[in-house]
Amino acid sequence: MSNTAGQIIKCRAAVAWEAGKPLVIEEVEVAPPKAGEVRLKILYTSLCHTDVYFWEAKGQTPLFPRIFGHEAGGIVESVGEGVTHLKPGDHALPVFTGECGECPHCKSEESNMCDLLRINTDRGVMIHDQESRFSIKGKPIYHFVGTSTFSEYTVVHAGCVAKINPEAPLDKVCVLSCGICTGLGATINVAKPKPGSSVAVFGLGAVGLAAAEGARISGASRIIGVDLVSSRFELAKKFGVNEFVNPKDHNKPVQEVIAEMTNGGVDRSVECTGSIQAMISAFECVHDGWGVAVLVGVPSKDDAFKTHPTNFLNERTLKGTFYGNYKPRTDLPNVVEKYMRGELELEKFITHTVPFSEINKAFDLMLKGESIRCIIRMDE
Amino acid sequence: MSNTAGQIIKCRAAVAWEAGKPLVIEEVEVAPPKAGEVRLKILYTSLCHTDVYFWEAKGQTPLFPRIFGHEAGGIVESVGEGVTHLKPGDHALPVFTGECGECPHCKSEESNMCDLLRINTDRGVMIHDQESRFSIKGKPIYHFVGTSTFSEYTVVHAGCVAKINPEAPLDKVCVLSCGICTGLGATINVAKPKPGSSVAVFGLGAVGLAAAEGARISGASRIIGVDLVSSRFELAKKFGVNEFVNPKDHNKPVQEVIAEMTNGGVDRSVECTGSIQAMISAFECVHDGWGVAVLVGVPSKDDAFKTHPTNFLNERTLKGTFYGNYKPRTDLPNVVEKYMRGELELEKFITHTVPFSEINKAFDLMLKGESIRCIIRMDE
Ligand SMILES: NC(=O)c1ccc[n+]([C@@H]2O[C@H](COP(=O)([O-])OP(=O)(O)OC[C@H]3O[C@@H](n4cnc5c(N)ncnc54)[C@H](O)[C@@H]3O)[C@@H](O)[C@H]2O)c1
Ligand SMILES: NC(=O)c1ccc[n+]([C@@H]2O[C@H](COP(=O)([O-])OP(=O)(O)OC[C@H]3O[C@@H](n4cnc5c(N)ncnc54)[C@H](O)[C@@H]3O)[C@@H](O)[C@H]2O)c1
Ligand SMILES: [Zn+2]
Ligand SMILES: [Zn+2]
Ligand SMILES: [Zn+2]
Ligand SMILES: [Zn+2]
Repeated sequence: MSNTAGQIIKCRAAVAWEAGKPLVIEEVEVAPPKAGEVRLKILYTSLCHTDVYFWEAKGQTPLFPRIFGHEAGGIVESVGEGVTHLKPGDHALPVFTGECGECPHCKSEESNMCDLLRINTDRGVMIHDQESRFSIKGKPIYHFVGTSTFSEYTVVHAGCVAKINPEAPLDKVCVLSCGICTGLGATINVAKPKPGSSVAVFGLGAVGLAAAEGARISGASRIIGVDLVSSRFELAKKFGVNEFVNPKDHNKPVQEVIAEMTNGGVDRSVECTGSIQAMISAFECVHDGWGVAVLVGVPSKDDAFKTHPTNFLNERTLKGTFYGNYKPRTDLPNVVEKYMRGELELEKFITHTVPFSEINKAFDLMLKGESIRCIIRMDE
Repeated sequence: MSNTAGQIIKCRAAVAWEAGKPLVIEEVEVAPPKAGEVRLKILYTSLCHTDVYFWEAKGQTPLFPRIFGHEAGGIVESVGEGVTHLKPGDHALPVFTGECGECPHCKSEESNMCDLLRINTDRGVMIHDQESRFSIKGKPIYHFVGTSTFSEYTVVHAGCVAKINPEAPLDKVCVLSCGICTGLGATINVAKPKPGSSVAVFGLGAVGLAAAEGARISGASRIIGVDLVSSRFELAKKFGVNEFVNPKDHNKPVQEVIAEMTNGGVDRSVECTGSIQAMISAFECVHDGWGVAVLVGVPSKDDAFKTHPTNFLNERTLKGTFYGNYKPRTDLPNVVEKYMRGELELEKFITHTVPFSEINKAFDLMLKGESIRCIIRMDE
């Protein structure tokens, strides 16, 4: 396999030439990995809202041409100088955030916000030399969040690559690279509901459904889904959600509705909407004395979280999380094992599959709200 | 001792006849404890801001005549029907908040906000029969937060009485009934700093100094005191505070000053001011990834806690606490043992002592800001 090591690889990639325009499958040249980098052969990738968001590039400084994609599974093709934890042939998941292993965050048991490899959506180049590894006829094509998995081969910082069990089916576990782990970890690692407890999940998109799956795995007995779109509720049942509230159906704040349903409030809540109103409700709906609320959704720049401080003094806790507090290299292999042992169900997140040549269909499905996750098969 | 059991006891009490007027030592009649109650002989009591606040009764519905006092140490004189955890002769601390042992809060490991015996500053009577146990010539005198310790004898709900080691000096451990435990527990039980960590304490009154003592006991290496009154700093050194910031000395928000001093933020912060601005600063000055801020101060009714939600998403935690999360009956005996083992220093909180006959001096000292705690000796 590694007879390509050290050489430029020509392969297919889906290039976004312009904001909001269909991706175009092109032949690109992928340079070999430099020191501390890894070149991966991507076998499966899936589409996440964040790809769509930066592809639409509304209200952003656009960076094009660019290769999107950040949820994927693949095999290490070659490694750059100094990379010791990965070797050609290893099965791996690239992740948009990394683990340098050296900074205070990496050394902290609690944080996964690596100083060096924390997500950077503005940078379209590799971190060490500020250059791209992708080109078409000598013209550089930009990277996206250090992963750019909509390409048969990609170069990633080794700190952003988790080595996983080679028996794990990459067409399933590839979804762990972003949204699913974010929701799952928000519940399991941060909210930490006890068996038999009640959990409210605000927002039943992929992230919220994964948060519900985390509550199911934790043994929560009441999992209350909250969404403005009632059609989300039927789907959510598969993810352990057993009660539903649509804030639009009530003429009082949803936190009051939930407090009434639960004798004073839920034990835990996880907000997966990005709506500031939902964030406030998610906090105010937890029980005094022991309630914990976790924020996951990405708010608007001008949003303000606002509540009466007495809500804190009454012994409620509010936290936020990034990527479910998982450290990609340390923790992701264990999440894969959880799936292998049958404790975590991933199949139900995968609603669609398309060949790479039809990648734009995956965008359509997400924009219409029809898919949770659509797997893109790179070999077709 | 219990030859008075079942009888009315005549004794001295300091009665507040009117808001803001000096207390008057009167002879009061103290009825025997009813079912579930305990009559205590108070030996030492200390003065807390909350007494002064309700005595001044500004912006409150005044409730007079009333017997204030809620930090005290005494001996059980007699117990009412059904009281099994206390007997005459036991050394005890009465507490303004209780532990019924039966409600969801009492059964939760995390909460101390007992549904039945949670603090109630408006009620001037005993909880079961809504009557007072104090009277002067048949006219009832109101209770205060269920304790009314400015009396040689008082009747308290048994759930609000902690039985402690009889060897513990009551003239020292009496201060554990309120402010000291509040600050101490906010750090030890809620913020939980690790050895070697940095802790910012906002507000260096009795509660903040106790929070600093908690940081010292926890082995924090940097204890940063924050107060608007620079003269508080000299005093605070005795409590382990080794760096000081006066927000007035800087022309940027104090959270930025602290972040610069600490390479991105402190590991823990504890707010003990009641100022909404300090609450926001205390939250925003903790490090991303692992920082925990704890609110203790009682805010104004119209205050709003306001911050950008990204401050949470960057993996900061905000909590609040009531009485340092201590369960009075379960935990207070252990805090007393901590003092007995020399781990907790109480003497430095006690700046003054007065005989009961001069109780109004204790009010003067507190109003002038000269005392941390003034012990009132009931036998003089
Ligand atoms: N913190 C992280 O590491 C991280 C990682 C990935 C995604 N995210 C964020 O998580 C959020 C969810 O992502 P997703 O892909 O599941 O999004 P999604 O759009 O598929 O789902 C969001 C759901 O929330 C619902 N919703 C919106 N406003 C609501 C409200 N006020 N009350 C109740 N429900 C409401 C919507 O109807 C929708 O069903 C987004 O904000 C995303 O940016 C965060
Ligand atoms: N949560 C509880 O269970 C509980 C129990 C007891 C007291 N309290 C509250 O704790 C707080 C402190 O009590 P205390 O008796 O120590 O009060 P205190 O008045 O003696 O001390 C407060 C200190 O905070 C300082 N301060 C005020 N505003 C500030 C600001 N913006 N920045 C920095 N410092 C500021 C003051 O200068 C003062 O030194 C009060 O709000 C009290 O009501 C809470
Ligand atoms: Zn790092
Ligand atoms: Zn994503
Ligand atoms: Zn109780
Ligand atoms: Zn007090």
